[in-house]
Amino acid sequence: MKKARGNTFQKSGRIYPEFHKMIQRSDKETFLKQRSKVIWLTGLSGSGKTTLGSCLEKELFSKGYLTQMLDGDNIRSGINCNLTFTGEDRHENIRRIAEVSKLFLNCGIIVISCFISPTNEIRTMARKIIGAEDFVEIYVNSPLEVCEQRDVKGLYKMARDGKIRDFTGIDSPFEAPLNCNLEIRTDLLTVEESAEQLVNFVLHQIRNGR
Amino acid sequence: MKKARGNTFQKSGRIYPEFHKMIQRSDKETFLKQRSKVIWLTGLSGSGKTTLGSCLEKELFSKGYLTQMLDGDNIRSGINCNLTFTGEDRHENIRRIAEVSKLFLNCGIIVISCFISPTNEIRTMARKIIGAEDFVEIYVNSPLEVCEQRDVKGLYKMARDGKIRDFTGIDSPFEAPLNCNLEIRTDLLTVEESAEQLVNFVLHQIRNGR
Repeated sequence: MKKARGNTFQKSGRIYPEFHKMIQRSDKETFLKQRSKVIWLTGLSGSGKTTLGSCLEKELFSKGYLTQMLDGDNIRSGINCNLTFTGEDRHENIRRIAEVSKLFLNCGIIVISCFISPTNEIRTMARKIIGAEDFVEIYVNSPLEVCEQRDVKGLYKMARDGKIRDFTGIDSPFEAPLNCNLEIRTDLLTVEESAEQLVNFVLHQIRNGR
Repeated sequence: MKKARGNTFQKSGRIYPEFHKMIQRSDKETFLKQRSKVIWLTGLSGSGKTTLGSCLEKELFSKGYLTQMLDGDNIRSGINCNLTFTGEDRHENIRRIAEVSKLFLNCGIIVISCFISPTNEIRTMARKIIGAEDFVEIYVNSPLEVCEQRDVKGLYKMARDGKIRDFTGIDSPFEAPLNCNLEIRTDLLTVEESAEQLVNFVLHQIRNGR
């Protein structure tokens, strides 16, 4: 082991603040040739958030954009595995997701967040954490009866049968967004049409010197 | 609004699993021309984790690698702002950091995590969440008396004065790693020498078709 000399950690009264300058978000956005945003898809269970989010990710990736999907699959089983569906835990669920989104945002990455996020209060919190200028709210809108008819995961039936409590749309409220940037009526459009609408909208927001 | 036709969300019994194939980690690693890893820096407060982490990030970025630093600045003030320094909360702190690291890992990004992470139990948990093959444990080692002498943030003095409790090294244990991949003696090396050792070690792990 060599003896200390020059700029030692040891001799310094403090640990070199000049070494602490982190690479900035703008550096990473330039590197990736994209502007980072959080695309926040809100809507009932079964409205098509994850389907559209996946379509968006694939389309953007094929055009050379780097994205990160956040949805129940990688959040509820991971960082939020210790949360339930009570009001308090739903709030903490969305708070953590917004904070994770912000970390990716600051890494220059386009985040696609697919969560019911049922109330205006909860979406306002997410917007505040992320920053209004980077928060793109997309309302994936399908009427309850359509979502319930689809019942992709069989959750609506379980909620009706009383096997799940606090299920959004059944015994827990969903408030239509007041400030969304785009509404997609997935009950009236095909998957392809819905995805096209979303992709075109997002592309305008993320181009950076392309 | 157009009428539904073709692949409607509505008519489908389920919401198109074929649309749900997410872009894989390997796709993103290929896109970024790097292999993603979690570089986990462990060591006492004042040992130089964040200094070395920042040096590593800058050096890698200058070589065209995309990284994400995680440290007290962007974690304790954000996703973990509701945690204290009790044993239980330290555990939850590291659990969430490991889960966030894993999300970035799966996005193809090289994560640089700079946290005291004082015990073998806590580091084993992080290794398990992230996956042993992707967890690179770096022991940033400086003796307690050296760290205390530096006292960059004035925290050791506060701990000695009894103004902070459960401070690692004073009234909370730090266990030297049993399985680290690299040990850097920051009391014996200069900042530049320490950073060089770290950068060279990491470069071997992240090259992907370069």
